[in-house]
Amino acid sequence: MPYVNIKITKEGGPDGSGATAEQKAELIAGVTKLLSDTLQKDPATTFVVIDEVPLDSWGIAGKPVTEYRARKN
Amino acid sequence: MPYVNIKITKEGGPDGSGATAEQKAELIAGVTKLLSDTLQKDPATTFVVIDEVPLDSWGIAGKPVTEYRARKN
Amino acid sequence: MPYVNIKITKEGGPDGSGATAEQKAELIAGVTKLLSDTLQKDPATTFVVIDEVPLDSWGIAGKPVTEYRARKN
Amino acid sequence: MPYVNIKITKEGGPDGSGATAEQKAELIAGVTKLLSDTLQKDPATTFVVIDEVPLDSWGIAGKPVTEYRARKN
Amino acid sequence: MPYVNIKITKEGGPDGSGATAEQKAELIAGVTKLLSDTLQKDPATTFVVIDEVPLDSWGIAGKPVTEYRARKN
Amino acid sequence: MPYVNIKITKEGGPDGSGATAEQKAELIAGVTKLLSDTLQKDPATTFVVIDEVPLDSWGIAGKPVTEYRARKN
Repeated sequence: MPYVNIKITKEGGPDGSGATAEQKAELIAGVTKLLSDTLQKDPATTFVVIDEVPLDSWGIAGKPVTEYRARKN
Repeated sequence: MPYVNIKITKEGGPDGSGATAEQKAELIAGVTKLLSDTLQKDPATTFVVIDEVPLDSWGIAGKPVTEYRARKN
Repeated sequence: MPYVNIKITKEGGPDGSGATAEQKAELIAGVTKLLSDTLQKDPATTFVVIDEVPLDSWGIAGKPVTEYRARKN
Repeated sequence: MPYVNIKITKEGGPDGSGATAEQKAELIAGVTKLLSDTLQKDPATTFVVIDEVPLDSWGIAGKPVTEYRARKN
Repeated sequence: MPYVNIKITKEGGPDGSGATAEQKAELIAGVTKLLSDTLQKDPATTFVVIDEVPLDSWGIAGKPVTEYRARKN
Repeated sequence: MPYVNIKITKEGGPDGSGATAEQKAELIAGVTKLLSDTLQKDPATTFVVIDEVPLDSWGIAGKPVTEYRARKN
């Protein structure tokens, strides 16, 4: 009975407002299948929770994501 | 000094916008009392954080919650 | 379909090695009932995960728990 | 830059002591590829953390996993 | 490659709508430096995620934060 | 009343068994001070929980940490 929490930055999608319902459904189906294939975990008791995090609330390399990307380019 | 994180789907409530402040207060009071009764944890240093998750960001049995419920009915 | 994560310090129990299986079962039963009573959440799809944290890995008021308690006494 | 946390019960594997290093590597590779395929997330900045939880610390349907399974059979 | 999750109540800031982007950037820079200074963790692979939690979803001492503060004054 | 969760790989320390109690105390003191300095959060109600994760349970770039490091060298 796995529990999977996926945290992603809130961006992309048709109007820039984040992952679409279809993309989230793909993530849910994909990770549930992965746990079933790899560890024989029962899909019926597999939970997946997706959290979308605002760009200025996510940091990497000591900087918010937006600043991090600007420096890389 | 326990820390409790409760994740629920965002639904219900008077206008469908999620748990009411009263319901959240009941959860906070109830789980704090449970930890005090069962393990003598001091309520003064018990934290409870409630996260409400959009329905299309929660998956079970490989499907988003809304699709999962539609199939069960 | 709630997911509840309870973090407690690893201590107490018959030999100081943490909560007993009975105490964990009481927490699981209690919080599942609370979510059912308060928000009509279905127990069949309620997950509870209990994490026990070593005392020196938990901090409060800027100090590890053991030091915090020593100062309070 | 996704962060994925996978929580599974600690069981199975060659000596009952949990998922093998190979199985964990498969989970890590699979979920990273899934995020890259679905949302074009860069694998270089995708983290996966796997937590294995003792059976008596995981509850479902108001009971610890071991009791839950015994009742189902 | 540390992962740090900071949960704070959503309040303060210029218009009461929470921490500013500048304050979040300070938290990200500060905790990344702390992990580098203390444990020689590489900033390039240090993630920080900040979650802001509505006041009525955070409990302490068995009460929502707003009620807790009102009683203390 | 912040809650901070720091996840690090379990390694280093005098005998390779992870961060020392002193290093954990430094992390706890440092992040509590950071939240007090940046957002005026009260140290008395700041929790810090440090999780140490086995190397084969942490993935980056689609590989377990040990394999990831071997390839970089």
